Amino acid sequence: MTDADALRDQDERWMRRALAEAAAAEALGEVPVGAVVVRGGELVAAGHNLTHTLQDPSAHAEMVAIRRAAQALGEWRLLACTLYVTLEPCAMCSGAIVLARIPRLVFAAHDPKAGMSGSLANLVQHPRLNHRVQLTTGVLADEAGEALRAFFRARRRNRVNPRDTADAPSPGGGADGS
Amino acid sequence: MTDADALRDQDERWMRRALAEAAAAEALGEVPVGAVVVRGGELVAAGHNLTHTLQDPSAHAEMVAIRRAAQALGEWRLLACTLYVTLEPCAMCSGAIVLARIPRLVFAAHDPKAGMSGSLANLVQHPRLNHRVQLTTGVLADEAGEALRAFFRARRRNRVNPRDTADAPSPGGGADGS
Repeated sequence: MTDADALRDQDERWMRRALAEAAAAEALGEVPVGAVVVRGGELVAAGHNLTHTLQDPSAHAEMVAIRRAAQALGEWRLLACTLYVTLEPCAMCSGAIVLARIPRLVFAAHDPKAGMSGSLANLVQHPRLNHRVQLTTGVLADEAGEALRAFFRARRRNRVNPRDTADAPSPGGGADGS
Repeated sequence: MTDADALRDQDERWMRRALAEAAAAEALGEVPVGAVVVRGGELVAAGHNLTHTLQDPSAHAEMVAIRRAAQALGEWRLLACTLYVTLEPCAMCSGAIVLARIPRLVFAAHDPKAGMSGSLANLVQHPRLNHRVQLTTGVLADEAGEALRAFFRARRRNRVNPRDTADAPSPGGGADGS
């Protein structure tokens, strides 16, 4: 096995853990996005989207995982950590990743509607900010995107609050189109 | 008094409240930035920078105030609210302001190093995002900028941790230059 193969296996392993977090979000009726922070091959913290559960607009999966990781490490700088997340981070989360000095970000599905780690902009590698992040994209993107598309298909069938559609990402620019 | 004069008076009044929050941050040894969320002429929530106190990279003044406001209102959308903050929001905070659907943002000093509400980018009025924010800038900018410059002057004199300088905003592009 080459180093590249080993890294891909490791990335897929941790992305599966992030997908389990996404499933935990979905079980709460939240948009299914999950994240984990990993250091030295060990899980530091995990989180999933809790914006509706907590009525906290900042409670995206990445923010929850970053805050828990900083608590676990007792240190606001998440040095030597990798963040895995099932959907491309938005502006808020991309900014938080830079503030936390996270060296490496791995995400699954792109978010062409609000993604700011490569889609609408690339804030995690901004030339004027004081930290730039190594970026790997597309790991288990099909599985992550399908979980999101299935969630929004079901929500359209059982529409309770039409305003909620404004939150819908459109992962991977697929046929979802919402 | 014209409507414009009345609005300026109101903005200065709430920015003074945000400056008091910045002073509370400074008393903790935090970079002095403060924020308040106001609705219908009433204070909804206040917050100041707590990143070192909490060892939480996301605990910027705006994020603290937004999370407290959502708790106070029991609703993640901060409709009909204005956010006042003493320094231009970074990428994370600009993104959170959009996510919370805050209609109006008023800030004091520009941050040419990391500001993303007009300086390096304008995420709060991004044409591709699903919410755009009305923006007023420069309210009590001299006072807010001087508080920040004085803080960093003092910290350079009593340097404990050189890495901390990486966090320094350079408000208003002044002579501070750090």
